[in-house]
Amino acid sequence: MRVLPLDAVLDVPAGTTIMAAIQKAGLPMRTGCGGKGTCGDCLIQMREGRVDGPSFAALPDELRKKHYALACRTPVHDDLTIFLPKYKPPEIKAGFSSTFFEEHKNAVSGSCEIDPVVRKVSLRLPPPSLDNNSSDLKRLRRELLKEEGIRISSCEYSTLKKLARAVRKNKGRIAAVLFKSEESWALLDVRAEEEGGEKIFGLACDIGTTTVVLQIVDLERGEIVGTAAGLNRQIMRGEDIISRIDYAQKPARLRELRNLIAETINHLIEKAAQAGRISPSDIYSASFAGNTTMIHLFLNLDPRYLREEPYVPTLNDVPILSNRILRLKMNPEARAYFAPAVGSYVGGDITAGLLCTPILRDSSKIFLFIDAGTNGELVVGNKEWLMTCACSAGPAFEGGGIKCGLPATSGAIEKIRLNDKGEPDYSVIGGTKPKGLCGSGMVDLLAELFVHGFIDRLGKFTEKTRQTRLSQNETDEGFLIEKPARGYGGRALLITEKDIANLIRTKAAVFSACSLLLKNVGLTFDKIDALYIAGGFGRHLDVENAIRIGLLPDLGRDRFHYLGNTSLLGATLILLNGKNRAWVEDIAEDMTYLELNTESNYMNEYTGALFLPHTHLEYFPSFKPGGRPGVSR
Amino acid sequence: MRVLPLDAVLDVPAGTTIMAAIQKAGLPMRTGCGGKGTCGDCLIQMREGRVDGPSFAALPDELRKKHYALACRTPVHDDLTIFLPKYKPPEIKAGFSSTFFEEHKNAVSGSCEIDPVVRKVSLRLPPPSLDNNSSDLKRLRRELLKEEGIRISSCEYSTLKKLARAVRKNKGRIAAVLFKSEESWALLDVRAEEEGGEKIFGLACDIGTTTVVLQIVDLERGEIVGTAAGLNRQIMRGEDIISRIDYAQKPARLRELRNLIAETINHLIEKAAQAGRISPSDIYSASFAGNTTMIHLFLNLDPRYLREEPYVPTLNDVPILSNRILRLKMNPEARAYFAPAVGSYVGGDITAGLLCTPILRDSSKIFLFIDAGTNGELVVGNKEWLMTCACSAGPAFEGGGIKCGLPATSGAIEKIRLNDKGEPDYSVIGGTKPKGLCGSGMVDLLAELFVHGFIDRLGKFTEKTRQTRLSQNETDEGFLIEKPARGYGGRALLITEKDIANLIRTKAAVFSACSLLLKNVGLTFDKIDALYIAGGFGRHLDVENAIRIGLLPDLGRDRFHYLGNTSLLGATLILLNGKNRAWVEDIAEDMTYLELNTESNYMNEYTGALFLPHTHLEYFPSFKPGGRPGVSR
Repeated sequence: MRVLPLDAVLDVPAGTTIMAAIQKAGLPMRTGCGGKGTCGDCLIQMREGRVDGPSFAALPDELRKKHYALACRTPVHDDLTIFLPKYKPPEIKAGFSSTFFEEHKNAVSGSCEIDPVVRKVSLRLPPPSLDNNSSDLKRLRRELLKEEGIRISSCEYSTLKKLARAVRKNKGRIAAVLFKSEESWALLDVRAEEEGGEKIFGLACDIGTTTVVLQIVDLERGEIVGTAAGLNRQIMRGEDIISRIDYAQKPARLRELRNLIAETINHLIEKAAQAGRISPSDIYSASFAGNTTMIHLFLNLDPRYLREEPYVPTLNDVPILSNRILRLKMNPEARAYFAPAVGSYVGGDITAGLLCTPILRDSSKIFLFIDAGTNGELVVGNKEWLMTCACSAGPAFEGGGIKCGLPATSGAIEKIRLNDKGEPDYSVIGGTKPKGLCGSGMVDLLAELFVHGFIDRLGKFTEKTRQTRLSQNETDEGFLIEKPARGYGGRALLITEKDIANLIRTKAAVFSACSLLLKNVGLTFDKIDALYIAGGFGRHLDVENAIRIGLLPDLGRDRFHYLGNTSLLGATLILLNGKNRAWVEDIAEDMTYLELNTESNYMNEYTGALFLPHTHLEYFPSFKPGGRPGVSR
Repeated sequence: MRVLPLDAVLDVPAGTTIMAAIQKAGLPMRTGCGGKGTCGDCLIQMREGRVDGPSFAALPDELRKKHYALACRTPVHDDLTIFLPKYKPPEIKAGFSSTFFEEHKNAVSGSCEIDPVVRKVSLRLPPPSLDNNSSDLKRLRRELLKEEGIRISSCEYSTLKKLARAVRKNKGRIAAVLFKSEESWALLDVRAEEEGGEKIFGLACDIGTTTVVLQIVDLERGEIVGTAAGLNRQIMRGEDIISRIDYAQKPARLRELRNLIAETINHLIEKAAQAGRISPSDIYSASFAGNTTMIHLFLNLDPRYLREEPYVPTLNDVPILSNRILRLKMNPEARAYFAPAVGSYVGGDITAGLLCTPILRDSSKIFLFIDAGTNGELVVGNKEWLMTCACSAGPAFEGGGIKCGLPATSGAIEKIRLNDKGEPDYSVIGGTKPKGLCGSGMVDLLAELFVHGFIDRLGKFTEKTRQTRLSQNETDEGFLIEKPARGYGGRALLITEKDIANLIRTKAAVFSACSLLLKNVGLTFDKIDALYIAGGFGRHLDVENAIRIGLLPDLGRDRFHYLGNTSLLGATLILLNGKNRAWVEDIAEDMTYLELNTESNYMNEYTGALFLPHTHLEYFPSFKPGGRPGVSR
């Protein structure tokens, strides 16, 4: 039986009810009546195949004609394709929820108050008369000044075009959408206002090299109404930024990359807008965070000089752009802000990310911020000073370059444990059969394989693996995570030695960069009071396992804070409070960049980190005989 | 013989030299050597027909192959079409020249200093290095601040797109084009600067109901480099604003009108740019003046409410618009300013026009400003107070609705005198055979016909006309101005009784509105210290004749000042000095509008003015037996 829209394929013994089959497979299905066929919660629609059963006859004619049935009362006797009309895809939290601002207002550097640069005001214009026949625009200006104290200094042409009709449609009741920049206001839109009032929305978007995640936010209440994540479609033209910059050397190819990222974002806006049941044309404000290369490519700016010495970007601070330029699926007059970059290799994703840490609240402690995306970036410092560097980590933790890897979306294993026989116990995002593993699942798996002796310190399969779990699917040989019958689409889920080598290279790049950065400022890991970890790992990251594989240093576990996608979270903070723009610009201005490429020690550090957990076991005392987990060295 | 590019057709006796024929017809042709065939000034090109002569053999081979000849040494023996390669079309001065600012700096209300809102600065950016690898934009910002004290607050996307290449092309030497709005600067363009330096230009444009006139101005030196004028192509959809508003009731038709005016302007920009040998993409600033309806139509704004009580425009003050919105043949980032309107029937053409009068310099005198365009507008007052009204004059003085009428362009009679037999003596713009008459020619002709008894006080042909000058061409019967042989294209030039009636209605509308406006403020004509007359009459207006037909009041002739196209001149002042924007906005704000439609006396006044010069001859004492010309009543 095939289940849509999940696209899950279940093996169902004849006579089992559809509901039993779905629940057995771990797919989501509610029942309010316990399967008596009375609540209607388990309504499904037949797309292919034939069914019959008591429920089918009991449904109203109009539903029957459209091939609806109740899953609890319908046995399977045919090869079916069914659709779950009530299924809602799981929200990707990425360390963030609508209540974040309330919960974190004292723990982040940015302001959590809701005070966006785009706002809507409701007005009622007095009707014109022979005695007061001021123009429509003047009456609007006057009312804005009188009622809201707002003096507009510019006005979009599209608004002028609509104005005469809007102010006459509903007895002068209108909603005006305004954008504040420094001390001046621009009128972005005017509409006749209906009874219910109109809502306006903002878009926060993290443009990652591998993954793009965005969310749509109600600009008045700060609520997230829709979220969507997907692979950056540019990935077909190169997995890392260097290969994309190389690809972009011809104008037509640069344009192609620009179009690919715009398509990616537009597709995700549509998904998130559908989830939130809003119209994309009600999105008037956008906040983007991404690395410098991604932003150059998104803006169709030649990225060539980013990788030629002396590594000069066209710009770090993108001026506010109108959606007339960007042409995304938002209101054409929407204004887009880009978190400022520090330089070619430390971008707006990092400056925005720092807003979500307390790093700028305190000058008595030392903080370390690690963003382990496809490009790894690190920041050490506090309110008084900030030093940053970058490394090329690779896309492994976001599922790139790994056969069993996935971004943190439906079908990805996000947690996994192995017993000593190598049998897995895991949880899958969306509750389907496993398609692969997201970052957090890979960190877990690597640690478990190592701890249970399935791989050695170099990441090679041991004899134990060869004797017990080595298996094959159509294309690969590797450690058997899940057998075909329980794998997604009836396919065995494996991790290959090559996958493991990629993961190790990624963790080594991050750890060695960390280590070098600290050496450069004369610090050691034990001087770090708090570590903030960000990245596309998923909702959770098992810090113990991350230390076990040598991705993170072996410090007291209470010093670690996994924040998830701070680029997205920072973009949201910027979206919801205009003051965070000044903040993030200060951060970008004040940070000192350390170029690792010119550090002679980098290769030594990196090579040493290519072991599990490290070539120097003394760095990881918790895992030495006699070492106690969770004790700082 | 046909002469291009003038398209003049000359009747030439065989054997006459081409030069003699051209000079006899009054067409322009220089000679530096007096016809000896040595200077080359009279070089022509043969397009059709055959010639032979001493000059032809004397020319270099390359010219001969291209059918060049010297007009002074080439006799006509065939039916020829020749082209004058050195011909330059006459400039339409419209009361304005490059030296205007110098000459008038103390006689106009606006500022004549050259200080435009768009300027170009030349910079040399220091090259980036590993020690100073600030972004291209930041190095540019820094240099602008250091060298010019300019802090830019916004930057066009198109500039970002070019930036990396521009700053690297010519060792960092660039030209930056900047736009100042209030206290902030926007970066409009950046180019690698060549040795010669780059010029930037502005466009001043009068959008008239009947005629559009524009000029391109060097923004650094204030020089006019090209001028062009033509009919507003909207005219095919109605001659006056009311018929255009009616036509525009459907969105597709409104769009059509918008496209027609944009085409008109684009065509004229091309012509003026060709004349000035500049590229339209070097035009970065534009200043438009037009009546409120023209501006609404140009901006594709529904003009319906302009003519429905209470006569409310969408806007009087158009925000500054980017050429990305207007899509005219200028630089895409050019900024357009629109002179502000007072209301639905007194537009930016009037507020801009007032800048060209001394009306705002003095509070001890009373000034009257008359703009006799298709819509007649009047302003009375001084520095302390301003009262304005409008009337529908009709397009007669710009050549609309008049069979023998033309705008003040090549082929139009601009001055004419008749002897007592009705034989004319006239001058034609461009020196060709006469195609028709422009406004000033029509005022002259109407006065001359009346003075010599060819028409009566109602404008009807007298017996004298019927016996001596009544004639016919293919379609009409009328007073014979010029016989076929001497008319343009071999066609007789006539004025019909209908033409005369139209002219009388136009002058009556203007005079009666004047008269009513003064009554409303408790003044009479004799209280007016100075009259400033504007309109599309042409380069000159014979004030004596204008009084003779009752268009202007019978005051001391020294009180009259004919300014020509003040809308264009005002737009140019606004283009060349940013401070004039604040000035013209104050003018618009402070003017009181008098609605003539609700004045019960208007019809009486108008009817009384439908006579030559007026039903009340006592208003025109100069022309009564015993009256002395030029004495105020």
